[in-house]
Amino acid sequence: MRTSFAIGVDVGGTRIAAGLIERKGRIVKDLQKLTPHNGPFAVVDAIIEAIEQVAEGVHPSEIAGVGIGLPAQIDFLKQSVEFCTNLPLAGVDVRSLVLSRVRHEVTIDNDGHLAAYGEFRYGSAKGARDFLMLTLGTGVGGGLFIGGEPYRGSRGLGGEIGHMVVQMDGPPCPCGGRGHIESYLGRPAIAAKGREAAAAFSGRAIVEEAGGDPAAVSAEAVIKAALKGDEVARAILLDAGEVLGRALVGLVNVFNPRLIVVGGGVGEACGFLVERAAEVMQAEALAGRRDVRFIQSELGNDSGILGAAALAFDEHDSREGLHR
Amino acid sequence: MRTSFAIGVDVGGTRIAAGLIERKGRIVKDLQKLTPHNGPFAVVDAIIEAIEQVAEGVHPSEIAGVGIGLPAQIDFLKQSVEFCTNLPLAGVDVRSLVLSRVRHEVTIDNDGHLAAYGEFRYGSAKGARDFLMLTLGTGVGGGLFIGGEPYRGSRGLGGEIGHMVVQMDGPPCPCGGRGHIESYLGRPAIAAKGREAAAAFSGRAIVEEAGGDPAAVSAEAVIKAALKGDEVARAILLDAGEVLGRALVGLVNVFNPRLIVVGGGVGEACGFLVERAAEVMQAEALAGRRDVRFIQSELGNDSGILGAAALAFDEHDSREGLHR
Repeated sequence: MRTSFAIGVDVGGTRIAAGLIERKGRIVKDLQKLTPHNGPFAVVDAIIEAIEQVAEGVHPSEIAGVGIGLPAQIDFLKQSVEFCTNLPLAGVDVRSLVLSRVRHEVTIDNDGHLAAYGEFRYGSAKGARDFLMLTLGTGVGGGLFIGGEPYRGSRGLGGEIGHMVVQMDGPPCPCGGRGHIESYLGRPAIAAKGREAAAAFSGRAIVEEAGGDPAAVSAEAVIKAALKGDEVARAILLDAGEVLGRALVGLVNVFNPRLIVVGGGVGEACGFLVERAAEVMQAEALAGRRDVRFIQSELGNDSGILGAAALAFDEHDSREGLHR
Repeated sequence: MRTSFAIGVDVGGTRIAAGLIERKGRIVKDLQKLTPHNGPFAVVDAIIEAIEQVAEGVHPSEIAGVGIGLPAQIDFLKQSVEFCTNLPLAGVDVRSLVLSRVRHEVTIDNDGHLAAYGEFRYGSAKGARDFLMLTLGTGVGGGLFIGGEPYRGSRGLGGEIGHMVVQMDGPPCPCGGRGHIESYLGRPAIAAKGREAAAAFSGRAIVEEAGGDPAAVSAEAVIKAALKGDEVARAILLDAGEVLGRALVGLVNVFNPRLIVVGGGVGEACGFLVERAAEVMQAEALAGRRDVRFIQSELGNDSGILGAAALAFDEHDSREGLHR
């Protein structure tokens, strides 16, 4: 049976978003709530509550299923959470816990993969069978789409673009490594650069955006100051863009994508960072690979819930033997 | 018609190898000659001569075609040479030039891709549908195999593993970039480290392997000294292994391969370099991805001609509508 709706949930380190989505990608109802930080079961409860809220008033038979994006390393085949930096979900069987309390099939996936899925099905990458999705937020994630499907690798663990080494003696990364893309581009890294500037006279505009408290400087304060024209803040973000560009040299040389879609809160707010990355990449990538199109995510923050819903529709259809 | 043989040619910066290969991978006849360095047409002539020599005495109808691996960026769909660092072949229509003078179909591809193809069809990676091939030689190349096929990217230009940035302020790379894997692992980089050591008292054993001339120190001299137990030479190669390991962190996090096959002259000679790389990668890759198997190439130098022949068989069979 062709169902009308799917539920997409996008769990972030800060917020959980959920939506009731139609097959064609229209968001019928959506909501956001803060992510609890008092243990794994509180997170799972919040997910279930969000699902129940968006499903309210819809007959269960009309719902194809639930897709959940987590900011974690997911073994997609086993549907298990292998590793999670920002939330205490590693080893927690999120899928079964949710499944036991909602009346729908549940599929979990990495949030970066689902953002790519959303852009592929409903957004900027519609029809692009091969592309690279980059999500710049608290973490740096993304996904590869190859042949119209997310590329997951041998154990479903691929696509962790944020954890490539770009500088062997670089700063420590939240994952335990060193000099990874995320250790330059993640929100904590940008905030740290902002606080460094704040400690000096040059960071005045940044401190102002943080309400006058140098210790409260966040990535958002740096971005806001930059968008208002502060040169110090802008330089911090352009430097980050340069690192991203250098990292993209390798990805472009290895994947030769035609399209790179940039999303995530930082990616969306900082067009100039993305432009710098594109310039730097184009100057260094091997000949013939430089005509990569860079576009901003069309769906913005909704890419996560839309991708999660697309996954739920696809899983439903393949269970039912339906073809898209 | 099912033909019996294909001709595989592997063009390197130093040598051209060619072989007459049976469908099951037996090398019936093979030869090597030095790569001419007096212009593109001399290279093409040498390729044609090699093809004629291995084809001698075989009826053309028994030959499925010719595959040629070039140390170059190949646009596989257009069958054009886009970029070539070590030979003057960029923009030269190698395929048409050879095709006009031999009586067989001709297909060109990147040499790293073909080494992977050879290992997949006849060697260490037989049956492995997803793996990473690394060739450590004068250049650093390789290829990704995804779903039983070489992954070529949107324009057939993917797989250039040697040209990922691992150190943003690292040494210049022959491609014009900076801090790429090849700028640490290619033969010229290893030779340069050897010459540095040779300039100091500590490099005695290395200079000895170079016939006593510090200026003549090559990567081979460093490798030979290391294999005889010289600690200075060994340290140079272990450092290179460490860089390779750090670079593999990113590749493993993004691709999550189950298998990495290491070939190329340097990769084959230096098991301890590869072991160090594996250790370093395993210490830093994200959880769940560390159980990658590292194996040496089974075919050694023959992977190139065997992969080229496998490509020629496959192209023939798809022209004829045959299935493997």
